[in-house]
Amino acid sequence: MPRGEVVRLRLDVAYDGGGFSGWAAQPGRRTVQGTLELALTTVLRLDSARLTVAGRTDAGVHARGQVCHVDLPATALADVSLDRLAHRLSRLLPDDVRVRRVVLAADGFDARFSATWRRYAYRICDDPTGADPLQRHTVLWWPRRLDVPAMNRAAQPLLGEHDFAAFCKRRDGATTIRTLHELTWAREGDRVTARVVANAFCHHMVRALVGCLLTVGEGRQDEVWPGLVLQARSRDPRVRVVPARALSLEEVGYPPDTELAAHTLRGRTVRTMV
Amino acid sequence: MPRGEVVRLRLDVAYDGGGFSGWAAQPGRRTVQGTLELALTTVLRLDSARLTVAGRTDAGVHARGQVCHVDLPATALADVSLDRLAHRLSRLLPDDVRVRRVVLAADGFDARFSATWRRYAYRICDDPTGADPLQRHTVLWWPRRLDVPAMNRAAQPLLGEHDFAAFCKRRDGATTIRTLHELTWAREGDRVTARVVANAFCHHMVRALVGCLLTVGEGRQDEVWPGLVLQARSRDPRVRVVPARALSLEEVGYPPDTELAAHTLRGRTVRTMV
Repeated sequence: MPRGEVVRLRLDVAYDGGGFSGWAAQPGRRTVQGTLELALTTVLRLDSARLTVAGRTDAGVHARGQVCHVDLPATALADVSLDRLAHRLSRLLPDDVRVRRVVLAADGFDARFSATWRRYAYRICDDPTGADPLQRHTVLWWPRRLDVPAMNRAAQPLLGEHDFAAFCKRRDGATTIRTLHELTWAREGDRVTARVVANAFCHHMVRALVGCLLTVGEGRQDEVWPGLVLQARSRDPRVRVVPARALSLEEVGYPPDTELAAHTLRGRTVRTMV
Repeated sequence: MPRGEVVRLRLDVAYDGGGFSGWAAQPGRRTVQGTLELALTTVLRLDSARLTVAGRTDAGVHARGQVCHVDLPATALADVSLDRLAHRLSRLLPDDVRVRRVVLAADGFDARFSATWRRYAYRICDDPTGADPLQRHTVLWWPRRLDVPAMNRAAQPLLGEHDFAAFCKRRDGATTIRTLHELTWAREGDRVTARVVANAFCHHMVRALVGCLLTVGEGRQDEVWPGLVLQARSRDPRVRVVPARALSLEEVGYPPDTELAAHTLRGRTVRTMV
């Protein structure tokens, strides 16, 4: 078969992770990737379409600002505008996943390797009488009051470039060095939300960081403890990985279009480094 | 059986209406009232407990600030503090209904007849690509952009005391005269929320008011139309009753404790008037 021109599309996506076995396609499981790829191939009458994603979210994790790309034969898009494609995808998709936007990717854009930062939110309710029933699928109920200023102070030593092995599920041959740009807690009534920004995250990292800081927030560990856990560089059984349902990928950052090619190359190099 | 002393408790309640056939107990149906009464009788080892509620919400309607009362024999409460009772109810109840607070009702307090106002919220998302998947169970998705200032202007003639028969599901022998204190729309990004406050509401009233104003908001009717519908005092087939899942009872207002007895008497008189 002759290879024709290929077009790369960027898709901005939101989903409720509750009904999915995570992002990544798995045989026999309902996944976000599988659901989106099926919709794309159906609408565009293709045999296959393979998505590359900025953040491979685990089972149960939500996304408001997920970004992915797909390479398609230009011929498949000949008869359809991108606005119309987004609209047709939205009509076909179940209502727990939405395609917010479909655009032609800028030159050199790669949803995964061009991304310079990812921002997650982790949502907790510490009302002692229970979480708001309307929010219970997206919030962790914590039965004891949390000391937010203490959690913010305890997060300080975690900022910057570190080996986050203490907070990561190990994967052979993968580095656990990451740069944590922000980890702040804010209270609004009984809602306590963590805002966590890093260049990238390893597996379980946000949920382990949050679990570690909650132990400080309820007074069971000192404020210095999270920094000591980080320095130990090995998993600490006292660090609990908190549930997925309160975690959401909110936003992915990319450099300006003109700098994309250089950034993407760098991202790829760093990630394959062991 | 000798009649002993009776104690009236006030319960502040929140629930996700999605899993309930409304507030009011019905044989063979899962209702909020039935679920709460079962929990109360179980915890207090009573044969029965009958709740009186501020707002009898329909199937699918949520509540964050519902209020109810129950009269119990003082003997049933002899061994349990009210804090402990709230805690035991919360542990027993499913997580789609929460008891926020249990207190001794002030003299003359009646959850229904003492209430001087009820505040509801109706939540809409008019992002053309669809509602946030995380909010889809509590928000109405509207595929066309809404003109919020036009909806606010159109709501003006509805304020004050009127016969709201045009917006109510008729019930024999019940007045449809109500005092609408506030009906305002606010936009936050793609989220458009109505705040609706009245002394009381008749059946379907909030959802019909919202449906009427949405017709203005998307430009299918003039801004004067809702006022004309009101004046006609009969159901207009062009007024759509919008879905229950985006409606929530947010707060119920009561007079100060010292004025309760007088207000409750007045409330009861007005409501039984035809």
